[in-house]
Amino acid sequence: MAKTPVLTPQADDFPRWYQDLIHKAELADNGPVRGTMVIRPYGYGLWERMQQDMDARIKATGTQNAYFPLLIPQSYLTREAEHVEGFAPELAVVTHGGGKELEEPVVIRPTSETIINEYFAKWVQSHRDLPLLINQWANVVRWEMRPRLFLRTSEFLWQEGHTAHATYEEARDFAAHIHRHVYGDFMRDVLAMDFVLGRKTAKERFAGAINTLTLEGMMGDGKALQLGTSHELGQNFAKAFQTRYLSKEGRQELVWQTSWGSTTRMIGALVMMHGDDHGMRVPPRLAPVQAVVLAIKGDDAVLAEVRAIGAALEAAGVRVHVDDRTDLPFGRRAVDWELKGVPVRVEVGPRDLESGTAMLVRRIAGGKEPVAIGALAALVPAVLDEDQSLLLTQARARRASRTADVATVAEAVEATAAGGWARVPWAALGEEGEARLAEHAVTVRCLVAEDGAVPDADETPGNVAVVARSY
Amino acid sequence: MAKTPVLTPQADDFPRWYQDLIHKAELADNGPVRGTMVIRPYGYGLWERMQQDMDARIKATGTQNAYFPLLIPQSYLTREAEHVEGFAPELAVVTHGGGKELEEPVVIRPTSETIINEYFAKWVQSHRDLPLLINQWANVVRWEMRPRLFLRTSEFLWQEGHTAHATYEEARDFAAHIHRHVYGDFMRDVLAMDFVLGRKTAKERFAGAINTLTLEGMMGDGKALQLGTSHELGQNFAKAFQTRYLSKEGRQELVWQTSWGSTTRMIGALVMMHGDDHGMRVPPRLAPVQAVVLAIKGDDAVLAEVRAIGAALEAAGVRVHVDDRTDLPFGRRAVDWELKGVPVRVEVGPRDLESGTAMLVRRIAGGKEPVAIGALAALVPAVLDEDQSLLLTQARARRASRTADVATVAEAVEATAAGGWARVPWAALGEEGEARLAEHAVTVRCLVAEDGAVPDADETPGNVAVVARSY
Repeated sequence: MAKTPVLTPQADDFPRWYQDLIHKAELADNGPVRGTMVIRPYGYGLWERMQQDMDARIKATGTQNAYFPLLIPQSYLTREAEHVEGFAPELAVVTHGGGKELEEPVVIRPTSETIINEYFAKWVQSHRDLPLLINQWANVVRWEMRPRLFLRTSEFLWQEGHTAHATYEEARDFAAHIHRHVYGDFMRDVLAMDFVLGRKTAKERFAGAINTLTLEGMMGDGKALQLGTSHELGQNFAKAFQTRYLSKEGRQELVWQTSWGSTTRMIGALVMMHGDDHGMRVPPRLAPVQAVVLAIKGDDAVLAEVRAIGAALEAAGVRVHVDDRTDLPFGRRAVDWELKGVPVRVEVGPRDLESGTAMLVRRIAGGKEPVAIGALAALVPAVLDEDQSLLLTQARARRASRTADVATVAEAVEATAAGGWARVPWAALGEEGEARLAEHAVTVRCLVAEDGAVPDADETPGNVAVVARSY
Repeated sequence: MAKTPVLTPQADDFPRWYQDLIHKAELADNGPVRGTMVIRPYGYGLWERMQQDMDARIKATGTQNAYFPLLIPQSYLTREAEHVEGFAPELAVVTHGGGKELEEPVVIRPTSETIINEYFAKWVQSHRDLPLLINQWANVVRWEMRPRLFLRTSEFLWQEGHTAHATYEEARDFAAHIHRHVYGDFMRDVLAMDFVLGRKTAKERFAGAINTLTLEGMMGDGKALQLGTSHELGQNFAKAFQTRYLSKEGRQELVWQTSWGSTTRMIGALVMMHGDDHGMRVPPRLAPVQAVVLAIKGDDAVLAEVRAIGAALEAAGVRVHVDDRTDLPFGRRAVDWELKGVPVRVEVGPRDLESGTAMLVRRIAGGKEPVAIGALAALVPAVLDEDQSLLLTQARARRASRTADVATVAEAVEATAAGGWARVPWAALGEEGEARLAEHAVTVRCLVAEDGAVPDADETPGNVAVVARSY
């Protein structure tokens, strides 16, 4: 069946393709206030499954969930100098409440380091209270001048973890653990995402951090997207809020802290890393619906069969949905499921029944073939496993083929202009080279060691800068 | 063991007892902006379990989760006249964003009927799109002049459901179903709460609704607390936002709508309905920790035994926590678990080991007795079931004993001043009587039919007004 081009082809205009897809797959709409978004049920279903999986991984580290207020006194922000400088331009300010002008304006949290430290300073008294490991699932507001659904929105949903530790080493190791084994494992194993795990340069660090770890993914057009960050805050916020503990040796010491966040941006990343000209391709482990069973026509035998297949797949552990809306054209429904990226479609019509088969359509690997109905329950789970791996393999292959090792700023600009990433020795680049790249809208996404590990410092010999245009 | 009075006794000062408990059980702290709150991990753990259970019940009705923006253009609020009148005094207004004064101020959602209708009007085209059943878990802000943690806070967490239907009857029945079988069943079966399910008078209705259903619970001091509300919105918002569908007959018709919400206030209700002078009593079905196994002393045999008991209880399906912090005084830890209302404590010390027993302490029924260690795994689940029922029975008995049937406004004022509820024939009260009660800070919590059912209208003959002082 030839496909109607429901989306702008990626090769014609990738950003337009993205926008078309977000709307047509019913993931999100633009909100009425500039830069805000309405996350529709299908998009929110993806977020719910991300939350559920990540929440379990976060709790497995001993971290507990809590909830801090949305509204922060403006004065809190100013206590950590770099922090306020970084966030001031993005703040939403509440000046009136309960019908009156407020004595002190309050801001909507752009992130919660300041308000959380106010409480950590009260809750932490002794070394027995450490480590203090807290996470919250919340909304934050950062006023956005160039909004793009899921990627940059004035309000977004996220989790933000905040921890306090007795020593520098423990804080450093905790941030690294979260980054590699909560974010990294989740994104690779569930989202089938390929990424580089590295360290941000001083210029790109979180406002108030002494080190920021990042995961950077390559999108379908070769641009980079930051997928999640984890920060070592050192003692910066502890100093600003006097967050101290009584050590075993009886001394008052400042705590060492971390913070780490991942956001609804992951939904945008999922679209742009795995999507194709026909829509999304959702990794089976994430997919709220892994297989949809479609009745092509509404006769009784077909309807009975799709329900039986649905039940058999469900019994085989597949998250399945039966589409029996035969009052809608079959073609429109098929295109709809394709747009939404449901990994497997099982299509059943009267002719299939005669032959005892159903059409198995694979969204991820592509292709369709008739399969004996009795074989579906064994086959579909195997197909889902295979396609989960395939998405990761394809993403890895893209990055490998579109990353160039170069030696100079000029070469890096050339490589990235063509829609790819460049790897440049940091020694050949440095902060001056970083500034020259910026003139071409190219940024250092992160620094990695020669062997791909995460370096301890920006200036560790052999560091390689991964540079790209980015979202 | 005589208890140190860690809390102000309920009989001395109930509000003070409540405040002491919220802080000492580490449920919540006051936020820095007046009326906001920090929900601490123990309090948030209760909320997470409420969410999880209710979310499944909400989804079972066919409702899907989504997410609408926090920020709403001020002009949206004004489109439904009663709605803006009701909420205007409580709004938080954002006047500056991204370093500039906004052209139109935006408000932080106090509830989402207006913004949701803006999108329902786009999404609903045909009768095929109905019913549209949406829920969101979110924070809302209503500026609060007399804040009280969990009960009235300027920001709170809730779920708000919003639905659109083709007919009045379908909308009415859906609101009633949510109210009785999502809220009612959850509160009775999980929270062990007793309540009256009734209809609000015109004066107490949600701003913009044609009917509001409520669940009203009696707290430990005899006052009432509204536990959850469900609204029939009629076509009020549909008219304001032109939310129309093409009927089967080919006509453009306005939809009929409902909205319904339940909030973090339920945590406050839990405290005030079941708590006693020693702290919370958490219903076993809700409790994040149903049984805590305490090592009294830190010797190896005791530690090995508490871990073995913990494992045995876990295998028996009990949510268990092993407290082996023997560097802290045992008495302090015991008081702490008591404050937090963990239903069962199993205490093990060296002397218990000699006799092969552990001390089983029941927080809900009260009392302690030595139990053979081998019998715990069978006994504890039975105790938890018994105590779940006991809480509900006690709450029901309180309401029965502290509710008076009266005939006049004067009698109603007298009965409620003594710390109880009164039932007054609505025909003897009416809107004039309601106004006179208000002079004594007594409100009509709801109207019920003579047989306890929910009446179809305020003026249905035989309606009884349940009146009380309230939180």
